[in-house]
Amino acid sequence: MDKFTCIIHGGAGDIKPAGDDPAKWQEECHQGLKDALQKAGEILGSGGKAVDAVIAAVRSLEDNPHFNAGRGAVLTAAGTAELDASVMDGRDGAVGAVTNIKTIKNPVLAAEAVMLHSPHTLMAGEGAEELARQQQLEVVTNEYFYTKERQEALAKVKSKAQGAEIGGGVGTVGAVALDRHGNLAAATSTGGLTNKRLGRVSDSACIGAGTYAENNVVAISCTGTGDIFIRRVAAFDVAAMVAYQKLSLEEAVNSALQKVGEAGGSGGMIAVGPDGSPILAFTDPDMFRGYLREDGTIHTAIFGSDTL
Amino acid sequence: MDKFTCIIHGGAGDIKPAGDDPAKWQEECHQGLKDALQKAGEILGSGGKAVDAVIAAVRSLEDNPHFNAGRGAVLTAAGTAELDASVMDGRDGAVGAVTNIKTIKNPVLAAEAVMLHSPHTLMAGEGAEELARQQQLEVVTNEYFYTKERQEALAKVKSKAQGAEIGGGVGTVGAVALDRHGNLAAATSTGGLTNKRLGRVSDSACIGAGTYAENNVVAISCTGTGDIFIRRVAAFDVAAMVAYQKLSLEEAVNSALQKVGEAGGSGGMIAVGPDGSPILAFTDPDMFRGYLREDGTIHTAIFGSDTL
Repeated sequence: MDKFTCIIHGGAGDIKPAGDDPAKWQEECHQGLKDALQKAGEILGSGGKAVDAVIAAVRSLEDNPHFNAGRGAVLTAAGTAELDASVMDGRDGAVGAVTNIKTIKNPVLAAEAVMLHSPHTLMAGEGAEELARQQQLEVVTNEYFYTKERQEALAKVKSKAQGAEIGGGVGTVGAVALDRHGNLAAATSTGGLTNKRLGRVSDSACIGAGTYAENNVVAISCTGTGDIFIRRVAAFDVAAMVAYQKLSLEEAVNSALQKVGEAGGSGGMIAVGPDGSPILAFTDPDMFRGYLREDGTIHTAIFGSDTL
Repeated sequence: MDKFTCIIHGGAGDIKPAGDDPAKWQEECHQGLKDALQKAGEILGSGGKAVDAVIAAVRSLEDNPHFNAGRGAVLTAAGTAELDASVMDGRDGAVGAVTNIKTIKNPVLAAEAVMLHSPHTLMAGEGAEELARQQQLEVVTNEYFYTKERQEALAKVKSKAQGAEIGGGVGTVGAVALDRHGNLAAATSTGGLTNKRLGRVSDSACIGAGTYAENNVVAISCTGTGDIFIRRVAAFDVAAMVAYQKLSLEEAVNSALQKVGEAGGSGGMIAVGPDGSPILAFTDPDMFRGYLREDGTIHTAIFGSDTL
């Protein structure tokens, strides 16, 4: 086995350009997706591990304010950022996940710290942050995560809903990868939903819901109406349909998204199996997305009508 | 469809009598299991819903200091109680779950509040407690949950491990039920692991890992080395093997527990399918367990050698 690939998403939804210059915004979003794939490609091309590649890609998307994860995350009903992330290594099923992160710059690195430096799999709030600080991860103020666009979006949802409803919109970033050694891995990170209640845990923190990886089966990362993905255990359901029903990966992803739809949700999934063929599917109009070919070419898209 | 059943567990492990009077302890544990099944039976016998029956059974076990949930929960490394619970209604896949609960007397009722009174599925810490308070749930001090036995157990693990290891031991309570209308439901509640880090989220809070219910397929509640159950998405895996591989429920439960074992874990599962046959399986030496027959008889057991 020598081939490798990485696939990323930056959230699905009805994507509208932000700011005053749509062309510039679009160019910056494409560049953000390319940067993330570039980071993953450097690792995979030199024989590195899938798990390191997905963490690097997600970290890059977290640092980019255009995507709903890390800096640029959507805001809670209290106007604050509470961030979730998870990572799963398909080699041995090792898992790390965090929820309600407020001051760790890169939630996906906090998730990695849980995987590598604790006997646990999912940690919440101050306990998760304490572990991250012990691992010398970069600490920021909560304000670091805020952007003008997200504050305006929160104000808009609040005015519409008298603060009682949560916003939909575009959320979550994620990456899946196959490395040269045949290993699969997945990582996901999110700010969640605009105007969410404090303490809400997203599917991006839940293994089996928003993230799952198992060598020789699938690596998958989801985005969308997270509470439905949790109820449907959507990411693991894809793995189960591939392993037990012998569906193709594309069939399994489409079936899982259909079940999410029947339960009242929508969103997208990126997935890769042992053969390295990229799957990028979504039931929302648009999805920030891209993938890396082993020949080094990078393909990115935003709108549903974009070819990839 | 007219038959109904409820099955409960009070945790699996190498169960040792607590206190000075083993016979009295054993009698009290059996009585605690019976009380929980009695509560569920009152609801199911009068045509009530499976979801209400499992909540009533788990609430009863939470109130009983012999079991690791609610009062009598095992303690964190900081000597405090941080409680998790979840509930799933197989009728429509509705879900509620909470983690890091410190002052709500019955975590399973806090989970129910998330299911009924929020757009979310899983909530953590102060945000979850705020929702529970808004729903007028009973508030207690954290000290309410402590028992002498759990404080001694923490001291013992800490002295053995210099505070660096988590304890195993007996944990988690849960219930699954089939009601007269053919509906399935499951609920789980836990104090987690002795000497766990603050912020650790257990499988009992994770839908698909420790709890899952889907009408016409299965209701299941797990106990054991929770982090492995999360990695293996163990509860949903049972449903997937039943639905996709057409395994019997017993075969699927045994296969899921075997996978948990291969990943280094152990524990137990209770499950019921649409035919109402009770499944109670465990790979630890013992499991607090019991079930209710529709003829009103109640059967309880503690040790692996007990007949049920």
